[in-house]
Amino acid sequence: MSTNLSKFRTSKIGARMSQLTGVRAIMKDIIETLRLGKDRKFYNFSAGNPLIIPEVEQLWREFTAALLAKKDFANVVGRYGGTQGYEPLIEAVVSDFKSRFGLNITERNVLITPGSQSLYFYAANAYGGYLEDGSIRRIVLPLCPDYTGYGGVSVYSDVVKSFRPALEIEEEQHRFKYHPNFDDLEIAEDTGCVIFSRPSNPTGNVLTDDEVRQLAAMAEQVNAPVFIDSAYGPPFPALNFTEMTPIFGSNIIHCMSLSKAGLPGERIGIAVGPEEVLQTLECFESNSCIHASRFGQALVTEAINSGKLAELSTKVIRPFYKSKMQILEQALDHFMPKDLPWFLHKGEGAIFAWLWLKDLPCTDVELYHKLKEQDVIVVPGNTFFPGLAEPWSHTSQCLRISLTAPDADLTEGLKRLASVVKSVY
Amino acid sequence: MSTNLSKFRTSKIGARMSQLTGVRAIMKDIIETLRLGKDRKFYNFSAGNPLIIPEVEQLWREFTAALLAKKDFANVVGRYGGTQGYEPLIEAVVSDFKSRFGLNITERNVLITPGSQSLYFYAANAYGGYLEDGSIRRIVLPLCPDYTGYGGVSVYSDVVKSFRPALEIEEEQHRFKYHPNFDDLEIAEDTGCVIFSRPSNPTGNVLTDDEVRQLAAMAEQVNAPVFIDSAYGPPFPALNFTEMTPIFGSNIIHCMSLSKAGLPGERIGIAVGPEEVLQTLECFESNSCIHASRFGQALVTEAINSGKLAELSTKVIRPFYKSKMQILEQALDHFMPKDLPWFLHKGEGAIFAWLWLKDLPCTDVELYHKLKEQDVIVVPGNTFFPGLAEPWSHTSQCLRISLTAPDADLTEGLKRLASVVKSVY
Repeated sequence: MSTNLSKFRTSKIGARMSQLTGVRAIMKDIIETLRLGKDRKFYNFSAGNPLIIPEVEQLWREFTAALLAKKDFANVVGRYGGTQGYEPLIEAVVSDFKSRFGLNITERNVLITPGSQSLYFYAANAYGGYLEDGSIRRIVLPLCPDYTGYGGVSVYSDVVKSFRPALEIEEEQHRFKYHPNFDDLEIAEDTGCVIFSRPSNPTGNVLTDDEVRQLAAMAEQVNAPVFIDSAYGPPFPALNFTEMTPIFGSNIIHCMSLSKAGLPGERIGIAVGPEEVLQTLECFESNSCIHASRFGQALVTEAINSGKLAELSTKVIRPFYKSKMQILEQALDHFMPKDLPWFLHKGEGAIFAWLWLKDLPCTDVELYHKLKEQDVIVVPGNTFFPGLAEPWSHTSQCLRISLTAPDADLTEGLKRLASVVKSVY
Repeated sequence: MSTNLSKFRTSKIGARMSQLTGVRAIMKDIIETLRLGKDRKFYNFSAGNPLIIPEVEQLWREFTAALLAKKDFANVVGRYGGTQGYEPLIEAVVSDFKSRFGLNITERNVLITPGSQSLYFYAANAYGGYLEDGSIRRIVLPLCPDYTGYGGVSVYSDVVKSFRPALEIEEEQHRFKYHPNFDDLEIAEDTGCVIFSRPSNPTGNVLTDDEVRQLAAMAEQVNAPVFIDSAYGPPFPALNFTEMTPIFGSNIIHCMSLSKAGLPGERIGIAVGPEEVLQTLECFESNSCIHASRFGQALVTEAINSGKLAELSTKVIRPFYKSKMQILEQALDHFMPKDLPWFLHKGEGAIFAWLWLKDLPCTDVELYHKLKEQDVIVVPGNTFFPGLAEPWSHTSQCLRISLTAPDADLTEGLKRLASVVKSVY
């Protein structure tokens, strides 16, 4: 989708935003592979699209039917709304967060956006980029790998900066975990804002409470807001497999999404945080798209107020993916050679597993192609290091494996993966 | 919502996008007035929010019920979609435009966006702004007044440029009409793109077919795309009260909205135009918000395929507002003094009337406050001249009057308006 040989001249921002960043480039190859091989049986572990879970679908169907039966339906779809969001949804979030987390917040501490990607887009450009005097304000990702979409949120190509993590390795168990490397991490005067996902897409890592507090304190020193992407966190979809506490603070914006709670098609993001930051983002939203869709907002209102969304999250959504993670771990432990230096990231949450193949004799992309030949599709890991300037061999030694495949496919696909990996070393 | 005294430092873009442009500033005063005077009877002609028309509400209720009954419901709300849009909607638009306008287009000529404001945001920043070498690319509004929202779509404050129109005045009839002033209009090497609304918000003006073709030809000379904001045009909501033909061309992007066809809450914009431009906008959309809400897209698919939306538009939506316009014209002709130089813009479409009070002895904002004292609320016209650099007394002599009030309110409110206007001259 390059516009280099184009008739119409794009601006600098236009040229930048015309690039499909990160995983989207590889997705084109995957879609083409699936299309050409439509009679082949694939073990497709590339999906970022969550599965439709019947109980969750039923929840959204019930709330849709209820909305349709109300007079308010006309008001919801047939009127423009305020940019900040559908008022009953804002009230629901305030009430839920007050009782659930004991937070002292008002409706001024909540903003609804058209999906959480747009929230990071507003944040990245309102706080990152350049000042009037030309000095840079970086968007700091304190630990990579992290969500590939952060690579595309700034209208400038040079302001996202991510840092190499520290690795905690359990050699015997073939497990590892990333930690922020506080010795190297720079959150300084030139930091505009900080963004990270917790639980993390793609690794399933959950930064510890202490790590989050330390990052927030560093950012507070330079008055930088910290956006914590909680798309997989509690209270919904609650895709944390380890205990975790959402952390709030005077410079923390807790960012939620409905996409992994069964409503990705509707594009609803929710931010909870300091009023000043939310007002800036609200103005950005107002100027660029007016407001988020109200149909989804109305459904989410009922889902929160009834308590059913949080309940389904812990009783259905979390166990569903946690079970997939266990199947994957069993398969890897069973099929992968004990004597090779493979390390699975600790499965602390989200809907992906992250496999590091230390000293891999080929690149992750080469391995991706070899796996395709055996009908196994994964996502090469190199696209999940947006903003990492220095070379690091680790970036081409990882694979992202989606937990959305059927159980039997997971087992068979990982058996094939183990065999390919063995042949490569 | 200024962030001048803020704790968190915004970037240059952040400071710019934190400004609420145009009509939104005055809307705060209006909302406050209505809140404080909640026991007063107001003749409120400020609304930009379309009315809920029962037949139109019924249409969207029917399609929602039908979607809910389908298995596809889960796929629509429960899965991420492609950025370009919900495939059946794209096919519906292609098929409709082929048969309706005889266009030779494919699915590559259609893009769905989360409302049409976001479409102009992508367009303004992908084609307007600055090139890599620092040279400017202007967003040209060939005729002002025009939609106030164009003032906020660029991340730069200095790139929107609009031009003074020519006025065709019918003295006796107290009517007038704007035309592009081709003698002064500059569409040149520094033009990044051209945007205008047709029918126009706020004036109800419909540029003639020849004017549109001439503008497109001028832009073609410098390879600039032309975005024609057809939010009030045919085939839906068909809020043109005069005959008009949608114009297509190799550098024209025909931009539609569902907001005046009963679905503003759902945020659906549709662009039909050259593939190269739509691919650029699609990438921008992908990076900034992934895709538009699919629930609304699914409803619109059925509304187009069944032909019901176009039918309701001409049989219900258009006559509804056309009748309001006639009531307004009768009231003004009856109550306004014959000897004063007042001129109503020809009501060729949209949901507003535009009144020019030539040689008005006070400003439009002062008149707005005087009218409020008599319980009449209109929108002062000065906010509808985004990007006009040169001073022009005309900009503070106009009022926008919404056609959304009840018939009796229109008549009584305009009687009061006539009385206030008389007292001011």
